[in-house]
Amino acid sequence: MPMITVEWLEGRTQVQKTQLAEALTNAFVDIAKVSKDQVWIVFRDVKRSDWAMAGKLVSEQ
Amino acid sequence: MPMITVEWLEGRTQVQKTQLAEALTNAFVDIAKVSKDQVWIVFRDVKRSDWAMAGKLVSEQ
Amino acid sequence: MPMITVEWLEGRTQVQKTQLAEALTNAFVDIAKVSKDQVWIVFRDVKRSDWAMAGKLVSEQ
Amino acid sequence: MPMITVEWLEGRTQVQKTQLAEALTNAFVDIAKVSKDQVWIVFRDVKRSDWAMAGKLVSEQ
Amino acid sequence: MPMITVEWLEGRTQVQKTQLAEALTNAFVDIAKVSKDQVWIVFRDVKRSDWAMAGKLVSEQ
Amino acid sequence: MPMITVEWLEGRTQVQKTQLAEALTNAFVDIAKVSKDQVWIVFRDVKRSDWAMAGKLVSEQ
Repeated sequence: MPMITVEWLEGRTQVQKTQLAEALTNAFVDIAKVSKDQVWIVFRDVKRSDWAMAGKLVSEQ
Repeated sequence: MPMITVEWLEGRTQVQKTQLAEALTNAFVDIAKVSKDQVWIVFRDVKRSDWAMAGKLVSEQ
Repeated sequence: MPMITVEWLEGRTQVQKTQLAEALTNAFVDIAKVSKDQVWIVFRDVKRSDWAMAGKLVSEQ
Repeated sequence: MPMITVEWLEGRTQVQKTQLAEALTNAFVDIAKVSKDQVWIVFRDVKRSDWAMAGKLVSEQ
Repeated sequence: MPMITVEWLEGRTQVQKTQLAEALTNAFVDIAKVSKDQVWIVFRDVKRSDWAMAGKLVSEQ
Repeated sequence: MPMITVEWLEGRTQVQKTQLAEALTNAFVDIAKVSKDQVWIVFRDVKRSDWAMAGKLVSEQ
């Protein structure tokens, strides 16, 4: 542990995921003193037609 | 907040998601007195071959 | 199915959860045509010291 | 209930999911004494480019 | 990986969790051929007043 | 969005959560170019008797 899940709208690039994976992992190692290889991160890209805010799907806003 | 996630079998239409997004959001605003723009809803469509009930995948029932 | 999870700040009353359980279930039955007894809802109350927005824990805002 | 979610790297076969659905369900029925038809299992296949371990996406390791 | 989460009504004993942890892990090792130390399982006990089925909280049924 | 959830063993301090909330949020703003107030983070502390690794609950290891 820890298990970190990131749920967000699709559209981010692979480079951004790579950079975030490194930055988040470093933050947990530095601040929470966990072992680096015990940090798991899962990105879940959500389609704009599957995410609603303020009562409307993002694809319809 | 709140963050609402809906996990269900794929197959519902975009119209149904649109109507549910509106209905769920209104319920939270009316009953829980949250701000409308703070209601997030994520739909996760699950394939019939990825959901099991009573020990069997739905795709095999 | 569906499995609906509601993640929000603690503090809502039992009456509000009761009313939401009924309202959300009815919405799924009416709009998505699912069987009433197949609607599962789980509320997860999150402490203000466990939820961050805009970089700050809610308990510190 | 229970609702069991399995989050793992994609690549497992349909046969493995079928066998796991049966094995996990039996374990809950035998040990936790729940009704078989009340056991729900959802498999979430995650792409290697969406899962990071030790600071790197699995697709880049 | 895999990361397995079990969401259920509170009330199961520690012995049942111990036995399930072993049974589920063995099933993943045997069927999915994953390494034993890579199997993570999290149990989330949900209060009867936080779980609704068929439109009613379990605590009120 | 994004909605970030951190599932880990209980025991971290409030200071560590405060620092992580800031560090994770900054990483998302810098790398993913999201608006700061749109970053939600939820910490879920899990008891050692509710998390299993390698077939054993952490509380029994």
